[in-house]
Amino acid sequence: MSEAIFDPQESAGAFTARQNIRVEWGHCDPARIIYNPNYFRWMETGVHLLFGAAGINLEQLTREDHDFRAVPLVNTEAAFLAPARIGDFVTHTVWISRWGPKAFDIEHRFSIKDRLLVKATQVRVWARALPDDPDSLRSIPVPQNVRAALSDARTVTLRMTFEDHDKEENHG
Amino acid sequence: MSEAIFDPQESAGAFTARQNIRVEWGHCDPARIIYNPNYFRWMETGVHLLFGAAGINLEQLTREDHDFRAVPLVNTEAAFLAPARIGDFVTHTVWISRWGPKAFDIEHRFSIKDRLLVKATQVRVWARALPDDPDSLRSIPVPQNVRAALSDARTVTLRMTFEDHDKEENHG
Amino acid sequence: MSEAIFDPQESAGAFTARQNIRVEWGHCDPARIIYNPNYFRWMETGVHLLFGAAGINLEQLTREDHDFRAVPLVNTEAAFLAPARIGDFVTHTVWISRWGPKAFDIEHRFSIKDRLLVKATQVRVWARALPDDPDSLRSIPVPQNVRAALSDARTVTLRMTFEDHDKEENHG
Amino acid sequence: MSEAIFDPQESAGAFTARQNIRVEWGHCDPARIIYNPNYFRWMETGVHLLFGAAGINLEQLTREDHDFRAVPLVNTEAAFLAPARIGDFVTHTVWISRWGPKAFDIEHRFSIKDRLLVKATQVRVWARALPDDPDSLRSIPVPQNVRAALSDARTVTLRMTFEDHDKEENHG
Repeated sequence: MSEAIFDPQESAGAFTARQNIRVEWGHCDPARIIYNPNYFRWMETGVHLLFGAAGINLEQLTREDHDFRAVPLVNTEAAFLAPARIGDFVTHTVWISRWGPKAFDIEHRFSIKDRLLVKATQVRVWARALPDDPDSLRSIPVPQNVRAALSDARTVTLRMTFEDHDKEENHG
Repeated sequence: MSEAIFDPQESAGAFTARQNIRVEWGHCDPARIIYNPNYFRWMETGVHLLFGAAGINLEQLTREDHDFRAVPLVNTEAAFLAPARIGDFVTHTVWISRWGPKAFDIEHRFSIKDRLLVKATQVRVWARALPDDPDSLRSIPVPQNVRAALSDARTVTLRMTFEDHDKEENHG
Repeated sequence: MSEAIFDPQESAGAFTARQNIRVEWGHCDPARIIYNPNYFRWMETGVHLLFGAAGINLEQLTREDHDFRAVPLVNTEAAFLAPARIGDFVTHTVWISRWGPKAFDIEHRFSIKDRLLVKATQVRVWARALPDDPDSLRSIPVPQNVRAALSDARTVTLRMTFEDHDKEENHG
Repeated sequence: MSEAIFDPQESAGAFTARQNIRVEWGHCDPARIIYNPNYFRWMETGVHLLFGAAGINLEQLTREDHDFRAVPLVNTEAAFLAPARIGDFVTHTVWISRWGPKAFDIEHRFSIKDRLLVKATQVRVWARALPDDPDSLRSIPVPQNVRAALSDARTVTLRMTFEDHDKEENHG
């Protein structure tokens, strides 16, 4: 089998977010590869990261508007192309590839350098409960300011770096 | 939107396993519906249930053969059609809809009575490590006894029932 | 190290619930033993099981009363005495060992036959939000009917059994 | 109830690691506070962070030595003092407060600014399997280089920062 290649140009033109995941002991199963439900958890994290990096804080919206129900998942396709192992550094790249009236497509790529591990597409909606029925769930048009914030052709990376406080104090 | 209907006849002719899931507090997110990565965890559980119900104990095989790597996920498609809420009883139905030389398709349906919540298909493989490289991962032909065990047209349900010991003792 | 023994008499006199857990591939980490956060998830499941088995359905209460906040954890102690492995059948025994005015102690034992794996005690409270502040969280006295339901000296087991539908139909 | 205060001086003199956790939608339960098993997952992450920040990469050791079983949990105590909510930034501080011959105590503090949320102590051991029995699990003396690496009185923070690539290119 030829190896799948991650092409960072795939998201060119779309607002793109990236996070780095260090594969830990607890992410792995007895085969010492990532237990696949973890990828679906990271996709949730990545969606919130994408909106947050664009200035749309879904968590804050949830606190301010008790009827807001965030962006429920409607459909997903995912291909698992190569395994990742304990200690690997995985890059998760997320962007919106299509805007519909109420639904939108989110692309997810998990890669180690240019080796593509997982390629997924999700269809999600913007959702609210009816004011008088907290158990209801309706998709509504994505607010205009949300689409605007996410239409900027930028790439934002959530970078994790070690900061050594004592060295820092020595510099002070 | 018209409601999606669960048709138990869909798996007729295939060896089928069912488990019941009571939606608990901890399965739900702030929208009080099932947090979607839980479905992907339950699909893993359901796959092991399916094999186990047919007499193929993947856990025992893993203990007996340290090079066995179980049935890794290659591809998945899932449609989320209706939400489930705290306290709901969800039925998870699992069966194999296609056997290829090394890969096979597993169908998953999550339903509440005849209301279909989630419909998913997974492509998985039978995998081993090379004896001299525990980090390797190869798909190999599904053993003949495994296919035979899973070709029986039966439905097996993992039923959860409360058993009251004191009443039981009163009967004794 | 001498082996720790599980004594089922420890909960004698208290309303007791039991569930059986089959240790699956996905519960285990690269050391092929249960990844410890799973025990803390099962303790949550066990608490809801305990109340439910006594007829106090925390999930239904949550749906009926949007200010109810279930039974948050205040304190926990846990000792991990022996590992469990893939394929093991673990019994989880849960009971309330002390009732305070607002707080109560829940005991958890995880065992394989008479071998004790994990022994834990949790302090929890009965909680509500203030009607006008959904973000608030107050412990309140446990309702009298709840204490009454849980003071019966019975043991209820959530038993998982395979039911074969075709055989069943043959009996019909 | 008076509020619990986080005192960063508590770990003075010990090698200390810190990570920041942004409380996401998926970490929270229907009460919109962190679902408590997540704290136990983060404690696992924090332990691996602590060793890694000191240059002891448990993941790499696991890959290099197939009999190494990392640092299993033996005992834990945790007090949950205040809830955290969606969108909060939580700081997780981790350090080793006691070295025994084979066991050691790890302290965990979760805080929002100077408000202490969770205070926990874990007893863990350094573990290996016997070379001829991969299912065995033995605690062995912590290697001298590990203790030395973790005895330095420094604080290392895993900082997450957004990096905007387009702005970066403008600087180039």
